[in-house]
Amino acid sequence: MSLLDENRLLPVEPKLRSLARALYDSIAQAPIISPHGHTDPRWFAENAAFPDPAQLFVTPDHYVFRMLHSQGVALEDLGVPRVDGGTTEVDGRKIWRRFAERYHLFRGTPSRIWLDHAFQEVFGLDTRLSAATADHCYDHISDCLARPEFRPRALFDRFGIEVIATTESPLDDLKWHRMIQDSDWGGRVITAYRPDAVVDPDFEGFVENVEAFCALAGESAASFAGYLNAHRNRRTYFKRFGATSSDHGHPTAATRNFTRAEIEALYAKVMTGKADAAEREDFRGQMLTEMARLSLEDGLVMQIHPGALRNHSAGVLARFGRDKGYDIPTRTDYVTALKPLLDAVGMERDLTIILFTLDETSYARELAPLAGVYPCLRLGPAWWFHDSYEGMMRFRQMTTETAGFYNTVGFNDDTRAFCSIPARHDVARRVDASYLATLIATGRLGEDEGFEVVEDLAHRLARQAYRL
Amino acid sequence: MSLLDENRLLPVEPKLRSLARALYDSIAQAPIISPHGHTDPRWFAENAAFPDPAQLFVTPDHYVFRMLHSQGVALEDLGVPRVDGGTTEVDGRKIWRRFAERYHLFRGTPSRIWLDHAFQEVFGLDTRLSAATADHCYDHISDCLARPEFRPRALFDRFGIEVIATTESPLDDLKWHRMIQDSDWGGRVITAYRPDAVVDPDFEGFVENVEAFCALAGESAASFAGYLNAHRNRRTYFKRFGATSSDHGHPTAATRNFTRAEIEALYAKVMTGKADAAEREDFRGQMLTEMARLSLEDGLVMQIHPGALRNHSAGVLARFGRDKGYDIPTRTDYVTALKPLLDAVGMERDLTIILFTLDETSYARELAPLAGVYPCLRLGPAWWFHDSYEGMMRFRQMTTETAGFYNTVGFNDDTRAFCSIPARHDVARRVDASYLATLIATGRLGEDEGFEVVEDLAHRLARQAYRL
Amino acid sequence: MSLLDENRLLPVEPKLRSLARALYDSIAQAPIISPHGHTDPRWFAENAAFPDPAQLFVTPDHYVFRMLHSQGVALEDLGVPRVDGGTTEVDGRKIWRRFAERYHLFRGTPSRIWLDHAFQEVFGLDTRLSAATADHCYDHISDCLARPEFRPRALFDRFGIEVIATTESPLDDLKWHRMIQDSDWGGRVITAYRPDAVVDPDFEGFVENVEAFCALAGESAASFAGYLNAHRNRRTYFKRFGATSSDHGHPTAATRNFTRAEIEALYAKVMTGKADAAEREDFRGQMLTEMARLSLEDGLVMQIHPGALRNHSAGVLARFGRDKGYDIPTRTDYVTALKPLLDAVGMERDLTIILFTLDETSYARELAPLAGVYPCLRLGPAWWFHDSYEGMMRFRQMTTETAGFYNTVGFNDDTRAFCSIPARHDVARRVDASYLATLIATGRLGEDEGFEVVEDLAHRLARQAYRL
Repeated sequence: MSLLDENRLLPVEPKLRSLARALYDSIAQAPIISPHGHTDPRWFAENAAFPDPAQLFVTPDHYVFRMLHSQGVALEDLGVPRVDGGTTEVDGRKIWRRFAERYHLFRGTPSRIWLDHAFQEVFGLDTRLSAATADHCYDHISDCLARPEFRPRALFDRFGIEVIATTESPLDDLKWHRMIQDSDWGGRVITAYRPDAVVDPDFEGFVENVEAFCALAGESAASFAGYLNAHRNRRTYFKRFGATSSDHGHPTAATRNFTRAEIEALYAKVMTGKADAAEREDFRGQMLTEMARLSLEDGLVMQIHPGALRNHSAGVLARFGRDKGYDIPTRTDYVTALKPLLDAVGMERDLTIILFTLDETSYARELAPLAGVYPCLRLGPAWWFHDSYEGMMRFRQMTTETAGFYNTVGFNDDTRAFCSIPARHDVARRVDASYLATLIATGRLGEDEGFEVVEDLAHRLARQAYRL
Repeated sequence: MSLLDENRLLPVEPKLRSLARALYDSIAQAPIISPHGHTDPRWFAENAAFPDPAQLFVTPDHYVFRMLHSQGVALEDLGVPRVDGGTTEVDGRKIWRRFAERYHLFRGTPSRIWLDHAFQEVFGLDTRLSAATADHCYDHISDCLARPEFRPRALFDRFGIEVIATTESPLDDLKWHRMIQDSDWGGRVITAYRPDAVVDPDFEGFVENVEAFCALAGESAASFAGYLNAHRNRRTYFKRFGATSSDHGHPTAATRNFTRAEIEALYAKVMTGKADAAEREDFRGQMLTEMARLSLEDGLVMQIHPGALRNHSAGVLARFGRDKGYDIPTRTDYVTALKPLLDAVGMERDLTIILFTLDETSYARELAPLAGVYPCLRLGPAWWFHDSYEGMMRFRQMTTETAGFYNTVGFNDDTRAFCSIPARHDVARRVDASYLATLIATGRLGEDEGFEVVEDLAHRLARQAYRL
Repeated sequence: MSLLDENRLLPVEPKLRSLARALYDSIAQAPIISPHGHTDPRWFAENAAFPDPAQLFVTPDHYVFRMLHSQGVALEDLGVPRVDGGTTEVDGRKIWRRFAERYHLFRGTPSRIWLDHAFQEVFGLDTRLSAATADHCYDHISDCLARPEFRPRALFDRFGIEVIATTESPLDDLKWHRMIQDSDWGGRVITAYRPDAVVDPDFEGFVENVEAFCALAGESAASFAGYLNAHRNRRTYFKRFGATSSDHGHPTAATRNFTRAEIEALYAKVMTGKADAAEREDFRGQMLTEMARLSLEDGLVMQIHPGALRNHSAGVLARFGRDKGYDIPTRTDYVTALKPLLDAVGMERDLTIILFTLDETSYARELAPLAGVYPCLRLGPAWWFHDSYEGMMRFRQMTTETAGFYNTVGFNDDTRAFCSIPARHDVARRVDASYLATLIATGRLGEDEGFEVVEDLAHRLARQAYRL
């Protein structure tokens, strides 16, 4: 028995399927370029064995634990750590059984495809997970994890990863990246500059963060000039560990373009910790424009990931902290929000700004029209909740006609679930092959062109856009 | 000749069609669970013959008369009663002819499928309605209506309805439900608690409604505590007539969580009839949270149906009153709107809140992410204007990947058109079978799992979610 | 070799394809009714040869130059004129080569289909445009343009255009239309009344425009009554040159219905040039209601094209002026926006108001429900960025179930690219045939009905709605 249909995600109609299959086959084995994600560099630095199946697949994966939780499983029972250090489940096998008993909840979700892919392709399992097979699967994966070929570096090589970017705060000393760089291992693991903690006045500990940040950079936090120099300094430091991009996770896409005097005053205000909501939004918005200007100086590609209302549940935030599956997308405006930044630097041909969205209504209405005209703009792939068959298909159907393929940047796996990386790239490649097959079969693209585009989407555009 | 294609709404590609057909066949005859709708309990209480074809199919069905009206037919000419008691058409045959002459207007609409289904399956007609066949169809249906097997209870049984919920105001004495309960008929017709008239300060006669409501419950309207007790009392009364759910039709999904003192003050203000728009919204919002708390006490499942701007045309409202096809969907926010309620009771595993929307943009962006994490939330099916082939397909395509199937609740027919009930459930079953067939044929679901899920969607989830 | 697949845009599944093909074949040669667009009446008046391929296909077509520009080509290098009269490329061949080298950018876009259609069907080319074939194509098209059968009137006849509307400002003297009327040529080229320049206080030179406009009409600009009479006068003048419609391109769909005294005061204020943003919006909104009232007087059909944020880039506006590809769609509300106008005149059966949108989220949520009930409302086709295969398909899928086919008005090519007219109508006909084939094959429409509807969509509805 096989967990995976070898023609999964390809069209059903025979002519379309064989065309899509040929397109997919041409890039199925292409190297993985992973320019944006959240894997832990410590894995590659220490190269220690992953502890157990639950800690690999359940406890750290918000896609997985949020679904179980939505059907009444307490987060404690899945081993999610509590802020107060209170007791949560530590027995991996118990967590795994809770997950396995409810595996039907994942029917129709991308998690199911990613999990089955990892179970079969990474661990060689061929029985579907369920209450009945829970222990068998747990034991099998546990045995694998104890073997050297399942250590992070070995998997990295086996997955065909040519380059992977992690995401770090400017406050991070990048010691794991240093350790990788100093090792004799040849895997290319690079960092990316994600300054939310020192750019967003709503971030926990913002004022202290900025002070620590400036201290780390040897700059004074007393003036905006010093603060901005600290960014220059840390960006340069990040570039030493391979960074080719910055990343910005703001609640909205708001940008600002104030005068220098206004900015100084705004900076002083947010550093008092007493700025109101509008001023905090102003500061975040101004900093996007500042980051774009720094990108013009140092060449980092800029990514904007706006539109999540973080930590929706006050109770869960208090008990378990951030990133517990309670980040919810919101309606996001780009057209008026980005105008100040674009009026400032939008015509710069050496600048690349990659826009993401959690609000699919912006694809055809705002993002494709913007990226289809501004030289600096590119569209990031379908993101987070939309990193799925239907989500990716909608992305192509709603952006291609206005922005084409060449204002997009290929795929991001964007994951902290290491074993899902090959699965996610595989899904993207199958969806793109299916989309292209449909264009060809309906006379919207030459077959020769399709084979070129599928290669562009699988790796070339990511290399180009992210300067890898 | 047949009005209905036996493979209607199933995919065209042969492999998909045969798979979808098999899935559909497995649940085509499953009992109808109708947990939310607007049929008239009087029909089942009195079991009188329906008066004539126009009064069965045209005059009470806003889907039908709004389309005719949009093409210039006066509502008076369709027999819609005037507020001032002025003359409107009373000749059923004339109304029917106006409808029949314009039957082409319904091409491509769900009304066309529901009507043809009723014509063929309920009345045995096999000629398409048109100016030419108007009288033939009218006479044929009239003849049927005169026969005992077309009385409401006989149709109820013939339709395979296992349970149907109607929707009543707390001001209703439920006398028709009592009459059904006291009769020797075994059909299960239950009520649902819809308190808009005493919860929404914008409802006509709100203050008088609340006073009558408290009087009915033997509570004092002078304090919020009394008012809330009146709800407790009436909910208990409704439960005696089978109610397992409450239902809330607010203009927005706004919720509030004020302190008791603030609530008392707000209640006092709205009872003066002089609350401003923000206060009226506050009161509605607070009442959703209160209703959720009462649900924790008494176990009623809570349904929220927000987002219709009612009575859009001032002229039509003045002349014909409410519910005349002039309710128009609006952009609806859930993420910030529901936060106060969810912070108050969102973690309660014994609470079920079923969310509906008229704004499809919220499916993938807000509703699926919310229902995919909060234990108390479930998603109601595609509603009203979206209760259609394309609407249901978009619902599945935009919610399943994030919320799965098990955070949804099966189908609601939500209708006041009795003869459309089997048609509507049939459409839903065909759409779900088609969707599942596509998942199976593209390797996203096992075939064995598909047969389980199609059964879940056809009746199991409705039973569970509505506690039937 | 052929640039065009003869079955392009038709479904792939064989049964669907043959059905769609039959439907398409039945109307492929139907006359072109073009009730709304932006071709230049001077072409038909003077009937001069088009100057060169770049000036025909690249420089005036914002779809084309915006895509090239988005990938770093300066607008100057495409010959786009500068506001300051500064140097831009004048060598058509150089512009053409820049275009040809980047022809891959158009993969998957409607521009690619329109261009290939024109290259093959209008000019008889059979090689795909690329750097390698740039000169060959340029020379071939240049040769054609020098021949009489490629003059505007000859192409008009060859394209099978039965009637085409251009769009003019009330300030226009319509001299080209007069010249066409006075000529011995029988082509039907009519104007349409587009008063933005004298209705929108944000339009460049608004106050002077209004003064010139009133002077032209022999009315006084000193009072609103005079100003309104000037509209009456100019509308009558436009009707002499065939106008059957007015057109309104506002930033939002806001309407107002003030008292006469309020309107006089508002008019006085905007004529000072000092009205604030809210007052300017009020004036535009009031004028939509006034225009609807004038339509009741003179029978012009009213078109509303709202929701573009014009001239998004301050830099491009300063350097190149309006209409340079920097108009970006915005979220657009219709439900509350149109209520004042609809309360005033929405029940008028002699009034036709055609609504367009750039915000596809309004299709199913707002526009179809509104057009599906108000007698005066009709839905215009998928517009601008949505004038494409996927855009049109979404339009049908999201409007038909609620509004049916008969509250829509057929196709608009809406183009200033003359050679794209047959291509655009052909795309629309293929999409509609495909959509109808799917309805038939899934039992949602009778086959006989499909052949009727496809004819309605191809030309009948446009004739009726636009009173042509």
